This record gives sequence, structure tokens and C-alpha cells, in this order.
Amino acid sequence: MFDDGLFGPSAEPDEPTPDELLLGACVRVEVELLGALHDAGLVDAGADGPPDARLRAALERDWPAPGDLAGRMRAGGNLAIPLVADLLDAAPEDLRAWVHLGATSQDVVDTAQALLLKEALRRVAADLAGGATAAAELAVRHAATARVGRTLGQAAVPTTFGLTCAGWAVGLDRAARAARVAAEDLALSLAGAAGTAGVHGASWEAVATALGRRLDLPVPDAPWHTERSRVRAAAAALAGASAAAAKVGTDVAALAVTEVGELTEGGAGGSSAMPHKRNPVRSALLRAAGMRAPGLLSTVFAAALAENERATGAWHAEWQPLADLVRLGRGSAERVTELLDRLDVDEVSMSENLDAARPHVMSEALSTALAPRLGRSAAQRAVAEALSPTHGRPPTDEEVRAALRSAVGDAPELDDPALLEPERALSAVPGLIERALRSLKENS
Amino acid sequence: MFDDGLFGPSAEPDEPTPDELLLGACVRVEVELLGALHDAGLVDAGADGPPDARLRAALERDWPAPGDLAGRMRAGGNLAIPLVADLLDAAPEDLRAWVHLGATSQDVVDTAQALLLKEALRRVAADLAGGATAAAELAVRHAATARVGRTLGQAAVPTTFGLTCAGWAVGLDRAARAARVAAEDLALSLAGAAGTAGVHGASWEAVATALGRRLDLPVPDAPWHTERSRVRAAAAALAGASAAAAKVGTDVAALAVTEVGELTEGGAGGSSAMPHKRNPVRSALLRAAGMRAPGLLSTVFAAALAENERATGAWHAEWQPLADLVRLGRGSAERVTELLDRLDVDEVSMSENLDAARPHVMSEALSTALAPRLGRSAAQRAVAEALSPTHGRPPTDEEVRAALRSAVGDAPELDDPALLEPERALSAVPGLIERALRSLKENS
Amino acid sequence: MFDDGLFGPSAEPDEPTPDELLLGACVRVEVELLGALHDAGLVDAGADGPPDARLRAALERDWPAPGDLAGRMRAGGNLAIPLVADLLDAAPEDLRAWVHLGATSQDVVDTAQALLLKEALRRVAADLAGGATAAAELAVRHAATARVGRTLGQAAVPTTFGLTCAGWAVGLDRAARAARVAAEDLALSLAGAAGTAGVHGASWEAVATALGRRLDLPVPDAPWHTERSRVRAAAAALAGASAAAAKVGTDVAALAVTEVGELTEGGAGGSSAMPHKRNPVRSALLRAAGMRAPGLLSTVFAAALAENERATGAWHAEWQPLADLVRLGRGSAERVTELLDRLDVDEVSMSENLDAARPHVMSEALSTALAPRLGRSAAQRAVAEALSPTHGRPPTDEEVRAALRSAVGDAPELDDPALLEPERALSAVPGLIERALRSLKENS
Amino acid sequence: MFDDGLFGPSAEPDEPTPDELLLGACVRVEVELLGALHDAGLVDAGADGPPDARLRAALERDWPAPGDLAGRMRAGGNLAIPLVADLLDAAPEDLRAWVHLGATSQDVVDTAQALLLKEALRRVAADLAGGATAAAELAVRHAATARVGRTLGQAAVPTTFGLTCAGWAVGLDRAARAARVAAEDLALSLAGAAGTAGVHGASWEAVATALGRRLDLPVPDAPWHTERSRVRAAAAALAGASAAAAKVGTDVAALAVTEVGELTEGGAGGSSAMPHKRNPVRSALLRAAGMRAPGLLSTVFAAALAENERATGAWHAEWQPLADLVRLGRGSAERVTELLDRLDVDEVSMSENLDAARPHVMSEALSTALAPRLGRSAAQRAVAEALSPTHGRPPTDEEVRAALRSAVGDAPELDDPALLEPERALSAVPGLIERALRSLKENS
Repeated sequence: MFDDGLFGPSAEPDEPTPDELLLGACVRVEVELLGALHDAGLVDAGADGPPDARLRAALERDWPAPGDLAGRMRAGGNLAIPLVADLLDAAPEDLRAWVHLGATSQDVVDTAQALLLKEALRRVAADLAGGATAAAELAVRHAATARVGRTLGQAAVPTTFGLTCAGWAVGLDRAARAARVAAEDLALSLAGAAGTAGVHGASWEAVATALGRRLDLPVPDAPWHTERSRVRAAAAALAGASAAAAKVGTDVAALAVTEVGELTEGGAGGSSAMPHKRNPVRSALLRAAGMRAPGLLSTVFAAALAENERATGAWHAEWQPLADLVRLGRGSAERVTELLDRLDVDEVSMSENLDAARPHVMSEALSTALAPRLGRSAAQRAVAEALSPTHGRPPTDEEVRAALRSAVGDAPELDDPALLEPERALSAVPGLIERALRSLKENS
Repeated sequence: MFDDGLFGPSAEPDEPTPDELLLGACVRVEVELLGALHDAGLVDAGADGPPDARLRAALERDWPAPGDLAGRMRAGGNLAIPLVADLLDAAPEDLRAWVHLGATSQDVVDTAQALLLKEALRRVAADLAGGATAAAELAVRHAATARVGRTLGQAAVPTTFGLTCAGWAVGLDRAARAARVAAEDLALSLAGAAGTAGVHGASWEAVATALGRRLDLPVPDAPWHTERSRVRAAAAALAGASAAAAKVGTDVAALAVTEVGELTEGGAGGSSAMPHKRNPVRSALLRAAGMRAPGLLSTVFAAALAENERATGAWHAEWQPLADLVRLGRGSAERVTELLDRLDVDEVSMSENLDAARPHVMSEALSTALAPRLGRSAAQRAVAEALSPTHGRPPTDEEVRAALRSAVGDAPELDDPALLEPERALSAVPGLIERALRSLKENS
Repeated sequence: MFDDGLFGPSAEPDEPTPDELLLGACVRVEVELLGALHDAGLVDAGADGPPDARLRAALERDWPAPGDLAGRMRAGGNLAIPLVADLLDAAPEDLRAWVHLGATSQDVVDTAQALLLKEALRRVAADLAGGATAAAELAVRHAATARVGRTLGQAAVPTTFGLTCAGWAVGLDRAARAARVAAEDLALSLAGAAGTAGVHGASWEAVATALGRRLDLPVPDAPWHTERSRVRAAAAALAGASAAAAKVGTDVAALAVTEVGELTEGGAGGSSAMPHKRNPVRSALLRAAGMRAPGLLSTVFAAALAENERATGAWHAEWQPLADLVRLGRGSAERVTELLDRLDVDEVSMSENLDAARPHVMSEALSTALAPRLGRSAAQRAVAEALSPTHGRPPTDEEVRAALRSAVGDAPELDDPALLEPERALSAVPGLIERALRSLKENS
Repeated sequence: MFDDGLFGPSAEPDEPTPDELLLGACVRVEVELLGALHDAGLVDAGADGPPDARLRAALERDWPAPGDLAGRMRAGGNLAIPLVADLLDAAPEDLRAWVHLGATSQDVVDTAQALLLKEALRRVAADLAGGATAAAELAVRHAATARVGRTLGQAAVPTTFGLTCAGWAVGLDRAARAARVAAEDLALSLAGAAGTAGVHGASWEAVATALGRRLDLPVPDAPWHTERSRVRAAAAALAGASAAAAKVGTDVAALAVTEVGELTEGGAGGSSAMPHKRNPVRSALLRAAGMRAPGLLSTVFAAALAENERATGAWHAEWQPLADLVRLGRGSAERVTELLDRLDVDEVSMSENLDAARPHVMSEALSTALAPRLGRSAAQRAVAEALSPTHGRPPTDEEVRAALRSAVGDAPELDDPALLEPERALSAVPGLIERALRSLKENS
């Protein structure tokens, strides 16, 4: 689908498609299972070498096209059934009794997906960590770049762009850590037709352990054909990656609004009809990914209602949402880094917007300064009064001072030349930024 | 993706892919827009014929591969931007000033999607109507095939398989009607950069009307770049199609449980490891589609929060969920008909299960029979007592009669030889089936 | 919950709670069912009057508190079971055999919910229609109030605030119509234990018809204990109401951003710490409702997988989402009207923002004007060139004209004094507004 | 709402309502914030004792009803605004300048919710651990209770009920661990109007640390007004609790189906109309909770798109889904334990169902036994042939042996008297159960 290109990670022209990846992972599982049977002493290596190497070689010689498989999936309802038939056809005759031995379709697909999810989560974690680093660099560079803090879209109090970026860094870093944890939780599946390992019997632990070693996946504590907590955790981590990246895209889009004009996407999208436009296209795609992931995640959680030893539909409902969450999570992690790496920061606009929001944006700081003298409520009333429009325009600094003096009397704090300067509201910011960046370092 | 083959409608080998369909629809919109400009008298037909025909001919000669487009979408964030560039390259030089005139990217994609959604909804409606007919035929054939009605999985009271099928028919028929209504509601989009039709100006109505005639789509009451009720309605109708079909699949799966054994899918799925199994694969896929559609639908509704004249992400979030809902809706509608057409009904199992559930399954009928004499509560108590296990097994019919007689005294209704026969509980069923089938006819 | 007050409709102090409404509706269903049995000739009126009146009178004398019911619901898993027990206790002794006759718990709750949903949908439709009228009035008043049209947050081309309002009006009106349609589709349920009307038998149609007449609800074409299309349609209409209102709230919030400053909520929310703030609180709540409804809707659609004659959980999963959708839909419809009625429109800001976005915002109009002379691509290039910053600032009108002249040569259209005036881009707007408002009238 | 009683945890009559809990937590946050200001040396203790104790005492004397608050929430859009006003009224006059100092509404509500979520997650974890223990006990007791393993509803291969229970135990235990992890991740919020701690300035770290010590909540790495990963993690853990419990409920409902009859809920729900029924009501409610949680979770993830320093709706959208997820998670955790503690296991039905599924259920074991001799495909064909119906009924054991002998020739394994006994398929089961239970111990 066209959307693959828009929302997924940047694909190199010769990169395998998702279908090829899934098929390749399934084949890898089958080949390594044969190897594990050999490791466990159940299949002998013949003169021609170990059985897994022989199967791999046979498949390289003679392997049908995926398209063909797709057509044959229908009757059985999943990919593994025609795949196993093809593997048996392609395998050396003496190995056929051992191919897929003790596994069921779901074992193959679940283990293949665990491989792909693990790989995807690790890449997502690495990309998000890269995004966090890019945000942290912006945080350092703009630690003191004052701008308007906005709540419910309204100018509230001064903040700095560095603090905003430090918040992005922590959000991306936390999502990266969650992705790493979910990756390590994924396990292989080798439980057989109904989760009893009935074919392997007493050899099961040896075979499973060998398979786990070969695939770098742990042996699970229990069959998980219908215990899907690992899948839910992986899905939540991927959706969390899109969520963290979408927060950044949402902020960039908000600050790129023409009248705000504080940020522009580097290499922003053009418009054929309006040559002047620089559309925040990456932000739009990050936001869209963040809007799509929750619905997909909900399906993965709904698939928990999986009856008996293997379910009639709940498992089948997971495949596409997982594939989409991988695509969105990987695309989001990659694109947010790109967005941050190429962000154009307009410090002049930040400063102008802050200036335009004065003196109102200083109301909290003024109230705080006067509260010890007047009590808080009275201080707030005095400030509100002093800031009310004069002659249909916001009052000047001098008008504010005068109004406050007439309310408070002779108060030395009103003589402070910095009384209405945003810096007065920013004393905690360096500490907040440092704290955020320290947590990044500790977690890396 | 492999899942396309499993969940979507049966694809013929040479059928266009979803990407090709979308691209083709976009091109069609652009060509017909040129034609509409001609219809409205804005573009002249030259010696070489009308402009739309000339553009179409030029495109047939010289048109780039979709793959190339996919790569170029990223910078602009949607399909239309590179597409228009290609169209301009391919168009006869004198027409270039008129190609895409007055349209924005979103007009093209939205109108193309309206065409595809309309076509999909109509096919879904036709397929669901076919499913309803198949269910209605089963309803007639099995109008009197008594079986156990089950609530919360427990044998409750007698019903007939025909009544179950009549319920399926009505459910599918109602979904078909909703799909038809949603199809007719879809409209073209031709509102320009920010919904003002600024380029067409006074000619807008003429151009839009001509375009609507050419595409068989109504002109909307207002620009709908960020008023997405039509899209929501189409999505809800498609999700409703999957829902109605999933209800049938859920019932078939429940009645195909080995110990229940009342239904089997014709040509049911096999298992490589367990040659005896006949898996309800179609039901599993229908259920999975019914589990996936709600999450996709939720994204389409969430995309309502589309700010300003065109949104930063909300529109982009719709594309893939709509494509998936089309795939699931069409696949569900097609597959449920196939399921019903080939359903194996085991009347012997139905009868045996009903018999095994006697006399308990008659408790409501017995209470109702005795209520006029004893009052309802006393009647229920007497029946519960009479049905309680004797010697660790359910009581025989004669034991039930005897127990009731000792509770009620001499009551002629207890002599009724049909006292414990399921047919006594089924007197309303023929009327219910007839009512259901009549509604189908009235709506066809 | 506190949120009830925030998101739901304005409650009068003595208004019934949702619990009281549901309970009252269930009781009404039971009373009218008794009346319907009388209408159908199954229960006689005694000397004391018709049975439904007698039951109603008895309940008025002696009826337990809902709180008590809540505790007793657990064992049976739904409200109707303890309710029926209480009704039987309270009913005159000779009527006890007839109370709840032929109904099952789900009949009572489903019919009660149909009554409440119908009432809610009608009120939602009325409130949304009121909102549409308010928006239409704004559309007329501000038909020519030019402002910047924004796409992806960027100034694009001129539009008018009236056109924005006309779009809101159509969106709200379409949602109102959908609510009306869904309301009329709701039906009563009277199908008995497993959907067979086994107790009523041949009298079923008479009883059901009488009940429908009493409750103003149609008799359904088929039992719908597990055919939930009506419930889905009602849920989609309620979610659609929240969606349409959230679109308005989203726009208001976007235009209330301090630096944009085109709209303010009348009576906007204050802030204890920042006396200058006027928070768009209604918009925030409308947006929040629009974000919550999709997840609730998805659950209602997922509940389609309802097995057999009555389901093990799917029905139970519907109750709370439906109650929440009612609350959100009603609150959204009411609040959006309030928002529109009290909206402060800052025409000066609209004008200033538009002026600040000139001449760029005229690029489309300029390209269109020059395209016949230069061809579109060349026209766009010339315009882009002419609009590029001069001396680090946007070019003046005269600079733009000069640059275009040097590109185009002597072109009379460049002498047009209105060349760079927004009005040139707005010629289609009056027609678009008229078209939108006409559709409102036709549908009212 | 009535549903609170059905889906939530068992409420004692005098237990605080969710509203009271939230209000109490908000008040606690405000009181401890005053204490933290004292700890940090900003507020002196007077002769009357420390300021937090004085505020607490004042509130005990004089505190308005929540109902009143609910009405006043609307104007400001959240609970904290009227609450702070009331606190200021109630506070001793000299403390008023310090109440709520440096906090914003969202700090108070977010911290209060962190307290409630932490408490809820800990209780959920404890209850789920209790459920896991109950399941583990069943696993030990029924380790060797053979029954049919079912896949897609079809009898597949033998398993034991103990293995099923071990799977439940692991699923519940994993959900318990996830709940514990999410609980520890929750943090306080004290970032002020726009996340800059502008009022506390240099004292911020001291105040925040003191507050964290008082509330047993960590100080976050960064302000999280619009960085919602902790909230998402808590929501996912609660939804995971409902998911794990719903899996158990789904299995119990499937095995309680009349014709399967292997399990019955102890104290199962009755039916007023059908005295014989024992409805799996707990399972139905667990399943319904598992169907509702995903939609609520999706909203919490969608709320990631929170713009700027505090968002216009995204935050408001979280409250009710979080409250519902707490209710569902706690109710699910409590009820699944109850379900397991009181489960009636019908070993006779398990054995009978397994016997009825023989010899087919042994097909995998037979194929495996013959594969070394015949090759797998041939073995599967021979077994399928031998198991095919004879005279319209399944073959007897002797007929199977005879058929296999005629296919294989004289094979000593066919003489094994246990050839067709389920125990042959269960050799791995004790090891699998032991492995599962060991993991429980290691994690407790």
C-alpha cells in the first residue's frame, strides 16, 4: 500500500518486504528447529553434514515464490500450513520425518513474529534513543532561549525552548527503555498441537533449550498459544513509541502555526498550488501514526479472549495489527529523529511572541512576588487589576508598576528593574533541564 | 501482506492491487475534472478531440510505475503531489494549464476514495444480500429442525435451527441496507486549497456539477476536507458488515465445537498434524475480522478532530484504516456467503443434544403450564423440585410427571402426552421466521 | 463521578441520575408489558382497574431503593433479576403470575435502553439542530469577514469566517439527521428466554404489538438479543454527535491560540494562578469527548461477536459504553450550542492575521491569474520568485508587482489595483455559504 | 451507575465512592504540599503546630460536600479549581498564602491520580497473585486429570486440566508483575502553571523531594503534564489485568457449555425463568471487562497527542478511562480469584469427553509412533485411513490396530496395549507444569 512508504521506516529499494520478512523468519524457525532436534540428539548428522545445514542448502536451491503461498493459505487459515507442505517437498528425503517435528502452525508463526518483534523493538529503541540525544542537544543549545509557555493554547508563563526539548528527550528515552524491556520479554513457542509438547515428550526441554540458543529467544515459562501477555507488551511498547514521537510532532505542529512561527520543519513539505507554504509534513505523519496506533493496540488487547488451547479467531486478529504497529513504531522512531535533527528554530519569533505576551505572562510571577506582603488572594486581585487593558491596549511596564504601587504602597520589590522580565520566572529551569539530561545518561 | 489474501475478498490473479485501484481512481478523478472543465465551457476541445480524452490517451502512452510514486510521496505527505507532477509531465502541453485546476491534493484523494468506498459498499451490500438469501433458504429448510437454544453457553429452551438462520438473515440484510445508504451518501470533493473554491470562483457550481455527473457522485452541501461525517458513515457501514458476518461465524464456531457437533464448515480446514480435524477456518477468519474492525473504526471517528481548513495528521490517519475496513468488510461479506452456502447441518446431533437436555430444557414450558393453577413462583418451585436429579441422574419423563402430580394434585394438563415434548415450546417459531423473511423481501 | 458533571448535559439538581433513569425505564417496560397482556386479552381487568394501573399504583406505594438493587445484581449478573423479584413482591397477589410474563432479563434491559437511547438521540438531534442554527446565524453575519484559511496550520489562502461557520452548521446538521434516523430504528425486545417467544406462543404478535404501541417503539423484524445492529447504529450516531461537536471545539481552540487570537469563548474559563487567562474550556471538553467516544464505540462494535441465543459477556460489555456515549453525546450537543451562542469573534484579529499573511496568501490567486499567459508551471515559478523575501522581509505589494512585471512583461492584469486583495480569492464563497444554508433548511 | 457494582471490586457499604477517593487524594496532596513547604523551610510552624496538621484539622472541622464541588467544576474545566477555592476558604488565614503554592490544577489532579493508581495497581497485583496461587493449587491437584485439548473448538490431542490451570497461573502472575512494575513507575507532579516550577524556583527540588517522601511517590525526571508515558503504562497494566482474568473467564465459559460440561462456576448464577440453569456469570463479567478495557486503553494512548505545556482536551480525556480501567482491573483481579477458588471441576465429564474423542484425539500420537518406520507423510496417511469411520461410526481400538497392521505390516509398537491410551500423549505435561509453577515461586 502507498501508506507503507509514508508511515513506515525508510525502505531501501532492495529491502525485503514485510511478507518476505515473515516468510524468512518462519523458514528460519523451521531450519533451526531441525538443528535443535540435532543438538538434542534426536536427529543424526549424516555424511552430508548437520540436518539444518542440509535443509537450508536444499531451500536455497529450490524454493517457491511467496505469492503462491498466499493463495494456498486460505484453506488452512494461516501461513504455516502451506509453508510446511513446501518445506517437506523441498527437504532431502531422509529429513522429512523431522521437519516441523513437534511444532504446530502457531508455534512457527508465533516464534517467527517474536523474532521480528524483537528486532523491530530493538531498532525502535535505538532510533528513539537517537531522537532523545537529538532532543537533548537542542535542550542544551536552547537552555536559556526564553519563549511563551502555553496551556490550553493560551500564553501562560515564560519557559525556555530548552526545557521543552528536555521534556521531549525524556519522553523518547522512556519509550526507548520500554521497547528494550518488551524486546527481552519475547520468547519462542514450541508447544505442539495443543500446548502439551506431546510429540517431544521427555525431550522437550532439551529441544526447546537448543532452539532458544539458536534463535536467541528464551524458553517461556509456559505455552503461550493463548496466554498473550508478551504480545500485548510488545504492542504497547510499539504504540508507546508512536505516542512519544507524536507528542513531539504535535508540539512542532503547534509551534509551526503561521502566527506562532517559532519552529519550521527543515526541508518542510511544499505545496504545488501555494509555493510559499512549508508544511509540517513529518509532524503530520507522526501525529497520524499516534492516532492510528491506539486502535490497533486495542485489537491486540481484545485478542486476550482466546479460548481453550488455541483460539478461533483471536490469534488471527493479532497478525495485521502487530505488523501495522511495527511499521508505525519503526517509522515514528526514525522520523522523529529526522525531525529533530533538521528542526529550524526561530529564536526571534520566540522572543517576539514572549514580548507580545508581556506583561500578562508575568502575572503569576508578580502575584508570587506580592503575596508575602498582601496575602495571595489580594495579590492576585491587585495584579489582575494592574494588568487590565488601558485605553484598549495592554498596559506598559510603567503603567503596571504604577498601578501596583497604588495598590500596595511603597514596596521596594516594585523598584526591581527586572520586575517584569521573563528571566525572573525561569530560575528553576536550568535545574529541571539538568535533571532531565542526567536521567538520560543514567539510562543509556 | 499475506493477510490480504486471508481476510480480503478472493482476488483473481490479474485483479488490480489496492494501490493500483487507488492510483487508478486518482487518475480518473483528474481526467474527469479536465472533462468537467470542458463541460463547463472553461477549456475548449481542439481539433484532437475533447481534453479529457486527449489526457487519457496521453496517459495510456506514457505513464510511470506506481513504485516510483511511492518513493516520492514522502516529501509532500500524500499521494497526489507526485501524481500531479507526473500528470503534468505526461499531459499534452496545451492542456497543462488545466490539469488539476482548482483542486487540491485532498480533493483528488478524497474523491478517489469516495469512488472506491462507494464501489466497495455496493459490492458489500450485494454480497451481504447474497448471504442473507442463503441464510433465508436455510431458515425455510430448517424451520422445524428443533435444537437447544443456548444462553450463556447453557441449554435454555428449545428453538429451531431455522429460527437461528432467520436471525442471521435479518442481521446480514440490515447490514446490507446500511451499506447501501452509506454508499449513496458519499460525495465528490472539489473545494480547492482551503475549501473556498477560490480558483474556480463563479464557475465552481458548473464545474462541480459536471464532475459529479461524470463520476456518479453528488456535489456535497459544503466542503468536507475537515467535515468527515461521510467517511465515518462509510467506515461504520463497513465495520457493520464485518460485525454482522462475525455474528454468523461466532455461532457456527460455537455449534461446531466437537461436543456440540451441530454444524461443520463445508470444506473445513484441515490440520497437518491431526488428520481428523475439520477446523472452522472461515468462522475463525470472520471472527478475527469482526475483532479487528472496531479498532480501525475508532481511528476514523477520532480523525474528526481535524483543525481548520485542512488538518495536520487527522486526514492522514484515515487512509489505512479505511483501506483495511474495505478489505475486511468485503472479505467478510464474501466469506459469510460462502460459509452459509456450504454449511453442513447435522440434524441428528441437534436432536440428540436436545434430547440430552431434556427434561431441564422444558422447565420454562412446564412452569408456564402450571402457573395459572399454582401461581408463578409456586409453579417454578414445583418444576425445579420435579427436575432435580434422582439417583445422581436427570429424572425420566415419568418421574417428572409423578413429581409434578404429587405437587399439584390431579391436573389434566399433566396427562398431556406432549407435556415434555420440545414442540410445545415452539409454537411461536413459525410466525417469527415468517416475519423475518417477510422483512427481507420488503427490503430487497 | 465528577466527570459526569463535566462531560454530560447540564443536570438540574432534582433531575434523575442515570441509574434512576435506567431503573425507571425498566419498571416502565414491566408495567406496560402487563398492560399489553391485558390489551391482548390475556389478563383481565378486575374491579380495581386495569392491571398495569394497579401495578403502577402498588409500586408507588411500596418500592425499594435502587442502592439495594445494586448489591443484589451480582449473583445474576444483570439488573433485571433482582428487579423482577422486587416487582413480584410489590405486585398485587393476583397479578404476580403475569408480571414479566414471557420476558427474559435481556428483554427488559434492552427495551429500557431502547427507550433511553431513543430519548437521548432525539434530544441530541434537537440540540445539534440548535447548534447548527447558531452556526448558520454566524455564517450569515460573517459571510464576508475575511480571514486566513489554514492548512496544516499554515496560512494558505483567504477564506471567510462565515464559510467556516457554514461548514460547522452542515456538520452539526448532518449529525442531527443521523441521530434522528438511529432513534427511529430502535425497537422493543420481547423474545423470551432464548428468542423463541416460547411462553407467549401464538399470542406473541398481539402482545408485542400492544407493547410497541404503549412504548412508541416498533416491533422488530426478528429477535435481537444477539443481533445488535440497532445498538451499533445508536452508538455510532451518538459518537458522531460528539465528533461533529469536537470539530467545532477543535477549530475554536485553534483560533483561540494567543498568537492567532481570532476567537474567544464567551465566559471562558479562568485560572487561579494566571488571572489574565481565558481558557477555551468548552472546547477542551468537546475535544475530550470527541477523543473518548471512539474507544467506547469500538467496544459496542466488538460486542457483535455474541454467540448463540444470548451471549456470555458481549451483552454485558455494552451497557457502560452506551451509558457513556449517551452522556458524551448529550453533553457535546448541548455544549457546542452554548459555545456557538456565546462565541466572541475578533474581526480585527482576523483582518490583521490576513494582512500579515499577505502577499503570500495570494500566491494561488496570482498563479491562477497568470497561468493563461505563462502556463501554470511558469506562472507558479514567477509567483514564487516574486514573493521571495527581499531584504529579509516579505516583499511589499509594489515589489511584488514589479517582480511580476519583470517576469511577465507588460500585462494589463498586473495593473489591477485589486491584484493582491484577498477579495479576489473569495468570489465563490457567497455561493458556497448559500448552498450550505439551503441544505440546512431543506433538512429541517 | 449500576455497573459499578457488577464490574468493580466488591464494595463494602461504607467504603468511599470513587468521587470521594479522588477528592480525598486531592486534599491529601494539598495538605502534604503545605507540609513539604514546611519541610523545605519555606513555611514556619507556628505555636499551633506544623502547617499541614493545622490545615488538616481545619478541614476536618469545616469542609463542603463534594456534590457542591461537582457543580462548580464546569467553569474551570477540572476538579482542582473549585477545590482550591474551598481549601483557601477553610484554611487558617495565615496559611492561605501557602496553600497550593507553586502547584497548578493538573499537578494536584495528576498527583492524586498517581496515588490512586498506585494503590489500585498494588491491590490488583496482590489479587492477581492470589488468583495465580489458586490456579497453581488447581494445577497441582489436577496435574494428571486428563481431558481433551481443544483448538479452534475441535478436539485435538489429550492434555490435562492441571496444565490448563498452570497456564492460567502464569498468565495471572505475569499480569501481577506488570502491575507491580507500573505502580513503582508512577511519580508526583509539581511543575506549576506551565511546567517550569516558576514559583518555587531554586527551592523546587527541596519541596518536591519533601513532597515525594510524604506521599511515597518519586520525583519525576521531568515535568509530565504532557509526557504521559507513566499514565499509559498504568493503563496498560490495568488493561492487562483484565485481559489475563478474561482469558480464565473465557476458558471457564467454554468448558461450562452444557455439552462440554467440564466446569461449573461455584455458586453460579440462576435464572428466574429457567430454574435448572447455572449461568457462568463471573465468567461473563470477566469477559465483558476484557472486552471493555481495550477501548478505554486506546483513549489513554490517543491522549499522547497533548500539545504544548498543557493540553486542550487530551488531559481531560484521560480521567474517565483511567477510572474505568481501575474499576475493571480491580474487579477482574478480585473476581478471577473468587472464580478459581470456587470452581467445580467435573472429572467425570473430562474423562468422558476424552473417551468420546478417541481414537481420533490420538492421531498425532499414532502418526508420531509410526513415522520412524513409514516416514511422516505415509504415517499420517495410514493413521487417517485407520481412523476413518467404519459403518458410520468411529472405529474401535481393535479396528484401528487392525487397519494399522494391514498398512504397516508386523510392527511391535502396534502390540503396545497402551497404544491408544491418552497417557501416551502426556509425557511432557508434568515437566511443563513444574516449570510453570517454579516460575511463579521465583517471582513471588
